Amino acid sequence: MDHDSSPSAVDRITPAQAHRRQAEGVLLIDVRESHERALGGAEGSTGVSRAELEANPDAVIPTRSTPVMLICQVGGRSLQAAQSLVEAGFRAVCSVDGGTDRWVAEGLPVSAVEGDVDFHERYSRHLRLPEVGEAGQRRLHDARVAIVGAGGLGSPAAYYLAAAGVGSLVLADDDVVDRSNLQRQILHTDARVGVPKVESARIALNALNPSVDVDAFPERIGAGNVERLIASADVVIDGADNFPARYLLNDACVQLRKPLVYGAVHRFEGQVSVFDAGRHRGDAPCYRCLFPEPPPPESAPNCAEAGVLGVVPGVIGLLQATEAIKLILGLGDPLRGRLLHFDALAMRFRETRLHADPQCPVCTPGTPFPGYIDYARFCAGQ
Amino acid sequence: MDHDSSPSAVDRITPAQAHRRQAEGVLLIDVRESHERALGGAEGSTGVSRAELEANPDAVIPTRSTPVMLICQVGGRSLQAAQSLVEAGFRAVCSVDGGTDRWVAEGLPVSAVEGDVDFHERYSRHLRLPEVGEAGQRRLHDARVAIVGAGGLGSPAAYYLAAAGVGSLVLADDDVVDRSNLQRQILHTDARVGVPKVESARIALNALNPSVDVDAFPERIGAGNVERLIASADVVIDGADNFPARYLLNDACVQLRKPLVYGAVHRFEGQVSVFDAGRHRGDAPCYRCLFPEPPPPESAPNCAEAGVLGVVPGVIGLLQATEAIKLILGLGDPLRGRLLHFDALAMRFRETRLHADPQCPVCTPGTPFPGYIDYARFCAGQ
Repeated sequence: MDHDSSPSAVDRITPAQAHRRQAEGVLLIDVRESHERALGGAEGSTGVSRAELEANPDAVIPTRSTPVMLICQVGGRSLQAAQSLVEAGFRAVCSVDGGTDRWVAEGLPVSAVEGDVDFHERYSRHLRLPEVGEAGQRRLHDARVAIVGAGGLGSPAAYYLAAAGVGSLVLADDDVVDRSNLQRQILHTDARVGVPKVESARIALNALNPSVDVDAFPERIGAGNVERLIASADVVIDGADNFPARYLLNDACVQLRKPLVYGAVHRFEGQVSVFDAGRHRGDAPCYRCLFPEPPPPESAPNCAEAGVLGVVPGVIGLLQATEAIKLILGLGDPLRGRLLHFDALAMRFRETRLHADPQCPVCTPGTPFPGYIDYARFCAGQ
Repeated sequence: MDHDSSPSAVDRITPAQAHRRQAEGVLLIDVRESHERALGGAEGSTGVSRAELEANPDAVIPTRSTPVMLICQVGGRSLQAAQSLVEAGFRAVCSVDGGTDRWVAEGLPVSAVEGDVDFHERYSRHLRLPEVGEAGQRRLHDARVAIVGAGGLGSPAAYYLAAAGVGSLVLADDDVVDRSNLQRQILHTDARVGVPKVESARIALNALNPSVDVDAFPERIGAGNVERLIASADVVIDGADNFPARYLLNDACVQLRKPLVYGAVHRFEGQVSVFDAGRHRGDAPCYRCLFPEPPPPESAPNCAEAGVLGVVPGVIGLLQATEAIKLILGLGDPLRGRLLHFDALAMRFRETRLHADPQCPVCTPGTPFPGYIDYARFCAGQ
């Protein structure tokens, strides 16, 4: 911005002048965002973002005549903020030309980096989204997601949750990596064929993001361990893609009031939804409201029998990760009461509305939990 | 299936009996699918899948009275096939009880494994899909996809194309891995910060699938190298997510008649389409038909400026990989003339129809190629 065209007269000073006036006791305010300031700035400056400063300058500047200097990254935002303050009646405001970049380049003293640099660098693309921001990123860090199945759905879901900075992941899967998995299960590698999937997954996830805590359980989920595996989770992702695990997880999530992000794939198609009946009894459906009975086993082949285009679990697992992040952040409209269906050949998505079944044996309000059943038997039609 | 309930009388023999009769010259037909037979089977058997055999038994069995024995994996399919043959008038057909599994368990001689075991094991979930099958998988193996950008879009696209067995990938990107990439660029790792992205990508892709040929070009795409980089590709994926690269790739793909799988992301949204005007002049739009002029630079912030939810490029890159696979296999309806828009917060997809612009300076039928321009200048509004 050209000085001459500026509507209000604002003094512009060099970093060296600002540093000298700082020594005389003049206040230097760093108006950058907190994630920018966290990477370091002019020593002795006070951090208040431009928006905060303009919204409530009196909280920071004692009187209209108090001398104050503003600094940002390259000099643009501090000049604009200074103009706003001058227009608001502050009479002794100036802006540091060239900002922190020039301050650093001229060798002036720089503050020690605040907090966790890795945090601010790594998540900078999230921190720039006001809807996520530092508070949201901390919430992701404090969250725990249980992923049942480290295969076709669990691979992309776990990868993107780890990338996003979800602090703690529980992975449960009793399989070892098989070469036939590698057509779609990108968490694993050729060299890890034969290794337990949860171990292989932990290696991949911590290589991407060493700060994620991966709790790997080489266990098949069942009535005996389900509550232990999901008890501490904020969100549960069904990546098992088989009917007994699906009914079991549904019942456990209703009982423990956990949101369940459901995904399923078949050949060239997949579907995803959020079953949140545990927290919203009567208002949101559970999986049993949709499918009170499992399909006959002969009409429900798994991937090994029917085959699957490898990208399909990729898409569905990523949509599951997206819903998990939205649930953690309380952002947007989750797929609660909506079933999203994906057809890869047509490249079309369509949505079906789902409703809670007032006769549902598991999630009807006031119904006591009927207890876990023999899900393998139930799904075998016995 | 119970022998007594079988509608036609079919003799059932043990593997040892079958092996003895083989020595007397009786034909043993392995009715499993080719990918199953490729993993080995009864020595000296002739491979003809059940469907093929039933469709045209005379091509394999000389006369209605020729003795013939059928074997499958565990004994079910061979029994059913034998019944069909008996009903069709073949009078000396029997089925080997327990199939190849029992043959192997009893220590009878087994054929050397045919062809490339890795191929059949690794891609078994694709081989089971009749729409892909062995011919489709070979076509993927023979295909070459150029991916411009090994970042947020290129990561999932390249990972899933390598997993799917696309034989050759061209990756072009002149960046090195930065920690701020790891929030969404799952090809890279914390330990590879500072390494050229295409090198980091090659390590990840070959760890997943060592047989994929990754041609890594640490180059920024421009008018001077674009034709060299994409000339041998069957499909081009735009993973650059910036306007100069997008117009450049569009023009080059029209000129070289390559289908271009376009993707773009912004904050919580993304879009994907297939621009195939090079092969379908006048019938299919190109990117310039949609956007003849780039947006003003100040209204088109990139990810670094505007931020992006990490899962969004994940979803879009996976949809790009899906379209690339469909184009290679000639399967389904590609997104040609359709723009698919993804809103992660609403979790909704919507489609817009696109049409070729009869005034388009690049793809109008009969228009000579206008040549490459200075795309950076064009997009800077100069």
